[in-house]
Formats: sequence, C-alpha cells, structure tokens
Amino acid sequence: MSNTEGHVRIFDTTLRDGEQAAGGNLNAAEKLQIARQLGRLGVDIIEAGFPAASPGDFACVETIAREVTESVIAGLARTKEEDIRACYGAVKDAPRHRIHTFIATSPIHMQYKLKMTPEEVLEEIRSAVSLARRLAEDVEFSAEDASRSELPFLIRAFKTAAEAGASTLNIPDTVGYSTPEEFHDFCRSVIEGVNAPREVVYSAHCHNDLGLAVANSLAAIRAGIRQIECTVNGLGERAGNASLEETVMALKTRSDRYGFFTKLDTTKLHSVSALVSRLSGVHIPPNKAVVGANAFAHQAGIHQHGVMTNPLTYEIMKPKDVGAPGTELVLGKHSGRHAFRSRIEYLGYTLSDEEIDTAFALFKKLCDSKKDVSDDDIAALIADEILLTSQENLYDLVRYSVKSGEGPALAVVSLRSGKGAVSDAATGNGPIDAAYRAVWRAIDMEPELLSFHIKATSDRSDALGETTVVLRSGGITAPGRGVSTDVIESAVKAFINGVNRLHVLASAKGVELSKRRKNYLE
Amino acid sequence: MSNTEGHVRIFDTTLRDGEQAAGGNLNAAEKLQIARQLGRLGVDIIEAGFPAASPGDFACVETIAREVTESVIAGLARTKEEDIRACYGAVKDAPRHRIHTFIATSPIHMQYKLKMTPEEVLEEIRSAVSLARRLAEDVEFSAEDASRSELPFLIRAFKTAAEAGASTLNIPDTVGYSTPEEFHDFCRSVIEGVNAPREVVYSAHCHNDLGLAVANSLAAIRAGIRQIECTVNGLGERAGNASLEETVMALKTRSDRYGFFTKLDTTKLHSVSALVSRLSGVHIPPNKAVVGANAFAHQAGIHQHGVMTNPLTYEIMKPKDVGAPGTELVLGKHSGRHAFRSRIEYLGYTLSDEEIDTAFALFKKLCDSKKDVSDDDIAALIADEILLTSQENLYDLVRYSVKSGEGPALAVVSLRSGKGAVSDAATGNGPIDAAYRAVWRAIDMEPELLSFHIKATSDRSDALGETTVVLRSGGITAPGRGVSTDVIESAVKAFINGVNRLHVLASAKGVELSKRRKNYLE
Repeated sequence: MSNTEGHVRIFDTTLRDGEQAAGGNLNAAEKLQIARQLGRLGVDIIEAGFPAASPGDFACVETIAREVTESVIAGLARTKEEDIRACYGAVKDAPRHRIHTFIATSPIHMQYKLKMTPEEVLEEIRSAVSLARRLAEDVEFSAEDASRSELPFLIRAFKTAAEAGASTLNIPDTVGYSTPEEFHDFCRSVIEGVNAPREVVYSAHCHNDLGLAVANSLAAIRAGIRQIECTVNGLGERAGNASLEETVMALKTRSDRYGFFTKLDTTKLHSVSALVSRLSGVHIPPNKAVVGANAFAHQAGIHQHGVMTNPLTYEIMKPKDVGAPGTELVLGKHSGRHAFRSRIEYLGYTLSDEEIDTAFALFKKLCDSKKDVSDDDIAALIADEILLTSQENLYDLVRYSVKSGEGPALAVVSLRSGKGAVSDAATGNGPIDAAYRAVWRAIDMEPELLSFHIKATSDRSDALGETTVVLRSGGITAPGRGVSTDVIESAVKAFINGVNRLHVLASAKGVELSKRRKNYLE
Repeated sequence: MSNTEGHVRIFDTTLRDGEQAAGGNLNAAEKLQIARQLGRLGVDIIEAGFPAASPGDFACVETIAREVTESVIAGLARTKEEDIRACYGAVKDAPRHRIHTFIATSPIHMQYKLKMTPEEVLEEIRSAVSLARRLAEDVEFSAEDASRSELPFLIRAFKTAAEAGASTLNIPDTVGYSTPEEFHDFCRSVIEGVNAPREVVYSAHCHNDLGLAVANSLAAIRAGIRQIECTVNGLGERAGNASLEETVMALKTRSDRYGFFTKLDTTKLHSVSALVSRLSGVHIPPNKAVVGANAFAHQAGIHQHGVMTNPLTYEIMKPKDVGAPGTELVLGKHSGRHAFRSRIEYLGYTLSDEEIDTAFALFKKLCDSKKDVSDDDIAALIADEILLTSQENLYDLVRYSVKSGEGPALAVVSLRSGKGAVSDAATGNGPIDAAYRAVWRAIDMEPELLSFHIKATSDRSDALGETTVVLRSGGITAPGRGVSTDVIESAVKAFINGVNRLHVLASAKGVELSKRRKNYLE
C-alpha cells in the first residue's frame, strides 16, 4: 500500500456540528482561536460553520477563511442556491476552500422532513453540486441519514453527485444507529456500487448514540473510507460525533494493525481539547479517553508498582505523545513577558501584541495575590478577560459586595452601561442568589438560569474561580463565563457576560428579550 | 438460537474497578445505595469490592452481600490464600455469591510486575481456583492483560482454571489496546482452544483507552462471550471500562442485528447513572451516550422540525426506555410524605423509615425558602445530608459568616468537635479562600485541595449549590461533598466533610495526617 493510499484525512466539524450542539453561541473570537489551533494541529479540513445561517455565521466563516491557512476551509450548505452562494462567499478567500452540500436520502427523512420524492432529491443533488462546482473546485456531498437509506438509491445519489463534480462523497451515520461490522459492509457496498473515479475520496461521519462512533469510523476506514469527520472531545448533536483525539490515537497506536496514518501533530491534542472544553463550557470527564485527567496510568495514581517498574505494563500511549501536561511549569511574579508569551502559545491561544500586553498586565496583577500561577489560571484569564472583552458589552461590573452567613444574604452591585451607571441591592437565599437578584433589579430583566457551574483552576483555595452559566430569555440561549479569585465575583461576571451575549444574539436575530421570567412572582 | 444462548450476563464492577479509579473513597452507605439500585436494575453479578484490601472494604462487601439479594455478589481476590479466604468471608452470606480471582498472564506483566515464571503462574491459578472452589460453588478466573498474552499460554492458563473448577473465564483487555475485529478473533481462538465444558461462561472486560471498549465488548459477544464486565458511566481505571448503559442499549437497540438480550430493566439506567455520578463526584458530560443531558434529540433542541413531525427521524431510542426525565415532576410545600417517598424511590435511593423522616423534614425546611423543589435538589439533600451524616464526624459546621467585595474578604467559622467548639477568622482572596483559611486555623490542619467544583441543582439562582472537593494529606486522598442554598456554606461543608473522611481513612490505615501543607508559608 502506498503512502497516499494509507493517508486518512481528518475533517474537523467542531465549529459546525460541535458548536451547534454546545448552544451555538461561541463568539467570533473564540471560534477563531479554535480554528487557529486546529490548523496548527494539522487537521486536513476545518468545517468552519454554516454561512447561510446568519450574517454573524457568515462573517465568522469568512474571518477563519482569511486567517487560517494551514487547512482546507469548508462551509456547510443545504442544496438551496442561496446556501451555496453564501457558502462560497464565506470560504472563497481561503487559499484552499471547499463547499460542503447535503440533503437527506433515507425514506423517513425524505418523507417526513423534506416531503420530497426520491427523484426530486436526485435533481436537487444534481443542481446543487453543479452550481457549487462552478464556484469552487473542491466540493463535498453528504447524503444525510445515509446509513438508513436504501442502498440502490444511495448509490444513485452518490453517482449523481460524482457526475456533477463532487470530489468527496460523505456517508453519515446521522442517528448513530450502525454497528462496526454492519457499517464496514455498508461502506464497502457503497464504494463498490458508486464506482467513482479514483480521485474521489469517500468519507464517513459517525455519531455516538450507542457509543460506537470511533469503532464505526475505524471500520469505515478498513472498508476504503479515506476521510473521517469528527470533533474535538466528541462534541456534537445528541451524544456527539466521533472523537477526533480517539480516532487519531487509535490509528496511530494501532498502526501495526490498520496500516493507516493521519498528518496530525498529536502532541497538540491536549491543548486543543482543553481549549475547546474551556470555550464551549463542556467539561471533560476524568475518564475520557486520551484527554481525560485520568487517561494515563501515572495520572490515576494506580497500578503504581507496575508502572514504575515498566510504564508499558499499563500504558499503551506515552503522555507526551498527546501533549498531556507532565511536571507542570508554573509561572510566578518573576516570570518575564517572553516566558508568558510562549506559555500562551503552548496553551493553544493566539493573541495580538496588544492582547498579550493586556494579558501580561492581568497576569502580573494576579501574581500579586497568588504565589503560583498555573496553566489553567492563564487559560482562564485569556478566555474570560481577553476573548470575552473583544465583544461590545452592554453592561460591565464596576463593583459588588456581599454579606452572608447570618440572616438572609445581602448583595449590592454596581454596573456600568451605555446609559450610565446602575446600582441596586437585594437579599437572597445565599450570596449568589442575592447578587443575581440585585443584578436583575439593576438591569430590569430576569433571564432563566439553565445551568450554573463553578470550577477552580488549581489546588489552592485562592485559585481562580471560573463560573459558566447558560441563560435563556425570549427563546434565545446564551452561555456566559466569568473568572475571579473571588467566587462570587466570578458568578456575577458570568451572569453579566451571559446577559451581554443574549443582547448581541437578540439584536442579530431581531428578537425581543423578555423582561421578566414567567410566573416569577407567583 | 435458544433464549439461554442469547442471554448476555451483565457483571457490574462499578464498586470495584470504578470506585478504585474515583479515588476509592465512597463510604459504606454510598456503596450500599449503589448496590441496591444495581440489584433493582437487574444486573446479573455485582462485584462489590476487594475484601482483602482493608477491614473497611471487607465490611462493606459483607453488608452488600447481606442486603442485596437480586444479584450474585462477587468479590475480587488475588491468587493469595488470604485474599481468597477474605473474599469468601465477605460474600458468603449472599444467597448467590462468587469468588473472582485473577493473575496476570502476559509476558510483560509476569516479568516486570509478578516476577514469576509462566509455570509458577499456572501453579498459582491451580491452587487459587481449587481453594476458591472448595469454599464456593461459583468461581471466576481472570487472566489479567489477556489481550497481550501469548495465545498458547493463555489457553493453558484458562484450561488450568477450568479444570480446577472455575465456571467463568474472563478475558480482560486490561490496557485497552485491542480493536474490535482483533478482539473478536482473539476471543474466538481462546474459546476454541480452551474447549471448556458447555456450562462454562466466557467473559470479557474491556477498557476504553482508545475509545473502543463498547465495540470490543460487542465484538466479543459475537465471538461467543456471554458475560460482559462493565461499569455505570464507564467509570474505571484510566479511561475507564466499557459503559454498562451503552453496552446494554446497543444490544437492545440492535437486537435485530445481534440477536442477544440482557435481563436488565433499562428504564432504571438513568437513575443509576445519576446516582453513581452524584456519589462518585464524576460528572456526566452532556454529550455522553444514553445518559447525557443532550443524549436525545428532543433535549438538545435540534432538528426540531424533523423530530416534531416524526421522532424517529433523529431518535433511535425512546427517552422513556432508559428512564430519562421527561416533564419533570416538581415537588413543593404542599407535597405529602407519600409523594416524597415515592420520588426518593424513583431516584434510586433506599432509606430507612427514620432516614425518610429526617429527609422529609429537610425537604419541608427547603420548601420554606424555595418555591419548587426539583429531583436534583432532593437527590442532593439525600446524598449530602443523609448518607454523609451516617458516618461519625470529627467536625460539624455550626455557623459561618463572610463579607466580601470591597477590600479583602473576611470569614468567621464556628465548628463543633468532640473536643468542644472551635472558632476562628481569616481574610482571603475572595470569600471561599477566606472561609477555608478560617477553617484551617480552627482545625489546625491544611489539607491540599486537589479539585473543587460547584454545581447548581436547578435553573434558579436559589437552587441548591452542591460543592465537591478532593483533599489530600499525608498521602491520603478523600472526597468531600456539601450542599446548601448558600454556595459559600456548601463549599465550607464540603471541605469539612472531606476532612472528616480523611480522618476516617487515616485511622483505618494507621497513617498520620500532615498538619501543614509543605511550603505553605514560603
């Protein structure tokens, strides 16, 4: 087998399928950070978004197409003409760009969702791929719900797409229903039936509803698939997509068995995973394969005796192969700007000189109140103080105070807004409840709090507290993050950040936010 | 195929392999709750622990053996005589009990860990299984690191175990290195080579280091394996074990393909998953298959149109099949004791009448400060107020107060201990830092804080805050949990709970806790 034949392309859809599931509300600066690190990781194709969804999505894909040059930049488009033209408009500035268009081919989707006949679907494929091909050289076609489609019709659909000029044909297991041996046979039948020209690449896109997405992807590769669509940390609709890091490390660790390779720099897997986790607010469980805190035997503190004598007794991968943090390099007040800058790069963030200055000043300020500053502290500072403030804020926290422990908790908050300063006070059931009630009064609005988490960045009680919330108002959902050595302050900042994002999204979508929670005063 | 042949036994090792990884510090009351719910779930075999590890582990396995009658109760034992006798002593009161003994059979483990020759290993197997078989009828033998063992030697090892009377032969992929097709062929070769009597059941125990544990388990079943060892939420060493809920739902959802079945009541999967997550402190990510918050299309708020027209467009399992919460039944101050009791049972907890009285009083008190009490609020109350107080506490929180927001935060705490009341005050970098420093002074000890998380139980700022911490002192690690509508109070309670657990563990192990953190005053 030649090297070209053994090359499996990695198509990352963290910013499309993954982001859609995470609430769809990463801001443009956050998406750009992730795309940059995916480029450095060496991902072959980055699906940057769905340009026709909104002007904001369009602009974000366009920015990534202009700034990230290491990978092919793809956008998703339905078979509608306006989707395809929007997609082309957004990706065209990338040195290498791709239009990815899709339509469902399963009986259940054609009947209930599309309400189209199979012949109409074929005509859509023909016209959409032809149009895309007139605009761009690199066109991918996906048959949504392929694994539940009738094989003869699916083959006709792919033949139609290939004849119209698609150079990648993607077989999604949209509902995560397949099993490995079944998906292997299915992919093989598709490849044999379509019998496309040699330069056409077949692709698989697996979902994890039965916990089989990675196994199905590997089975597809054995069947002749040479592109895997996957996401960092397995983010994605429902139970998520095939996890990029697991798929890549399975191919690498078991190259003896599979004989395939990817072009990724696996030593960046850990940083890209941490970056996506922090920015999406989707935490990684300790028992997550490859990137979880316990993924390596020496981390879990187990089997100590065997591991010390010979690490291979319990470790099949080396921690450094995936960039897992070893002896943590801790920065402190004597660390200079250069060390700080290289630490930021190691963590996967890309900042302008001006942003580095701001971050360095924040770091120095933090050193005054904490002896050791960890990687997690630095990542939290950048994510929550640099990336968040790159957006226009309706409100900023000026100061707050709380008193709690005997009798009802009391909070006073002061915010700055375009209309001037607003302050208010409230009591509550604990200090965060009191502080949130005081904010509601100050901003005259009460979004629902869908989730609320606080995490410490390190092993000291003066660690930075990082709060993530998800808010909802008027049918719009937005995450919010805040960081501070003071946990109450981080909670208040996260809430205000969520409110700011709600306003940005509401004005983009032309929706009115609700002032009050329904039934609140019942 | 007859029904018996299609029956796959589920061997749950959440309380052994899972608990070991989670820090090994669930208390006896917590383990019993989990075992009871596993029994109700219909798990065939519960591995309740490793009785020879400590008197505490022995007592805990013994209690489960006496109280949980729905399942076979197994204990783990090395091939040493004292391990096997301890195991028998702990499980013997269970109506159906099993001794599970193991030794490694791979060259690397025999050479570096055991420092034994292959012949010595065979002799260990013979004597251990024979002894176990004289004590108990049901004996399982595991060949640790089987998938990296030499096939001819592994077959000899299993033949030896079967001849000595083992009725279950387990093939662990200890390091999670196998791929599905490879593990299928390997299991088939073992089964053919050993050629054991018909009544012997073959078993597989897969780890998830490459994300393939569930796929490998399914491949093993196709090869003739009829027992799967797995854990709730995929807990376990490193990247964990095969996830029980994914394995069971893959077999059920794809019975058309596999033709196998388990005897589990899958509608209890969600409650057992939530119970294990809360008690182990290992959170479930939203994109976790089967039990994650986004696992179902209708939850993720996606593909809305298709799902509304026909749920099967995007759902391959029904939420009710796994007991996923639908329209949440919310209790309030008008709810009676009967409704409260059945809610507790639905959530998977088993309480004595006395404990129900205490819990109901706490619930009523909570209703005074909150309008709606959610399932999560109730589970948090039970986990953190009932199960935790069933142990002897060295310290209890009497009261605290904090002031924060302008200048350094200030905290005052008062604790009750056997030696009388202790109080102290401290300032800090935020209110939790201040409160922890005040507690350190009061108890004259500073454990390291290895992790710190706060989670809200519901979508209101007056939700219960639930803090989980992991503390370390003198080489001992202990988790701590605390719950309160006041987030600072929950953090202080979690810390004190962790300190209490550290003391229990230290006295059980005869270890001295360190008074001060190393370098703290540098």
